Amino acid sequence: MAHIAIPEGLPGISGGFAFRPETAKPMRELAHILLHEPNSLAPGERELIATYVSSQNDCYFCQTSHGAAAAAHLGDDEIVKRVKADFQHADISDKLKALLVIAGKVQQGGKHVTAEDVQNARDLGASDLEIHDTVLIAAAFCMYNRYVDGLGTWQPRDESMYAAMGKHLATEGYRKPSTENVEVA
Amino acid sequence: MAHIAIPEGLPGISGGFAFRPETAKPMRELAHILLHEPNSLAPGERELIATYVSSQNDCYFCQTSHGAAAAAHLGDDEIVKRVKADFQHADISDKLKALLVIAGKVQQGGKHVTAEDVQNARDLGASDLEIHDTVLIAAAFCMYNRYVDGLGTWQPRDESMYAAMGKHLATEGYRKPSTENVEVA
Repeated sequence: MAHIAIPEGLPGISGGFAFRPETAKPMRELAHILLHEPNSLAPGERELIATYVSSQNDCYFCQTSHGAAAAAHLGDDEIVKRVKADFQHADISDKLKALLVIAGKVQQGGKHVTAEDVQNARDLGASDLEIHDTVLIAAAFCMYNRYVDGLGTWQPRDESMYAAMGKHLATEGYRKPSTENVEVA
Repeated sequence: MAHIAIPEGLPGISGGFAFRPETAKPMRELAHILLHEPNSLAPGERELIATYVSSQNDCYFCQTSHGAAAAAHLGDDEIVKRVKADFQHADISDKLKALLVIAGKVQQGGKHVTAEDVQNARDLGASDLEIHDTVLIAAAFCMYNRYVDGLGTWQPRDESMYAAMGKHLATEGYRKPSTENVEVA
């Protein structure tokens, strides 16, 4: 049971969003811009960054839902598992590996990011906007993950639910609640 | 020097906001709702929560600017120092102490919050909305702090600048850029 009286049957962050629609709106908007709007980083790459950070923060709901969104974008489940377990040996670009190094440092704390980490990403082709968005995706998931776990939300273990949610998120983005979330209730 | 080419002379988060106005907008909006809009927790109490979490995350810009905002609201500098150093012995309500315990757990990671922490806050008069907002303020500052430090932003050591910024934030809130930030440049 969640720590506060959030509506029953809404998994993960959707419970918090339903409890407080005022704060849900900018939180959804930020995720939509960072993960779904056009960007030189593909949506699947950005979802991999979100999934990796959520995995490092041990947030089951976020790593599973965003992992499903990444898999829906990339058409590949295995790459998501590999990025979480050992991204340096995953079949992703060297640029994305360098951005994941930065994301992992941000997850530990912003001061962990070094000029060398940033230069390495730049040498591999990352733009300042891509570096900025990587830092902010990682920072934002340190918020979303803590929100989901800090409220003690319901996080069902139902792979088919997350697969449906991932497809919905990959198609529609984050501005509006997913109907799949509600059907699960 | 910041890790990316953010405009010169803008301290802390205002540099990141100027670099990427699209993401600045929902980030400002979230801070405004959580810290400035009417709430049963006073703005000074909410700024103390933001300051405490920023202090635990060792973010100089955020703990100093929000500490100044708290001091402006409360008319008291000393209480801010005391909350950062040892809030259990600060001259604040027992309810706020219980909420700061929750905020400190969220800073470490959402799963650290226990049912007992929440029950204790409730026994001391905290509502579900106050508990929700405490969790989200703490989670959100784990984002803002990482954003500010992860970009390597300029964080001047100028107490009078932060005092002016704190007064502006306490009066105007977070929706619009502070002109004080720009005058410092």
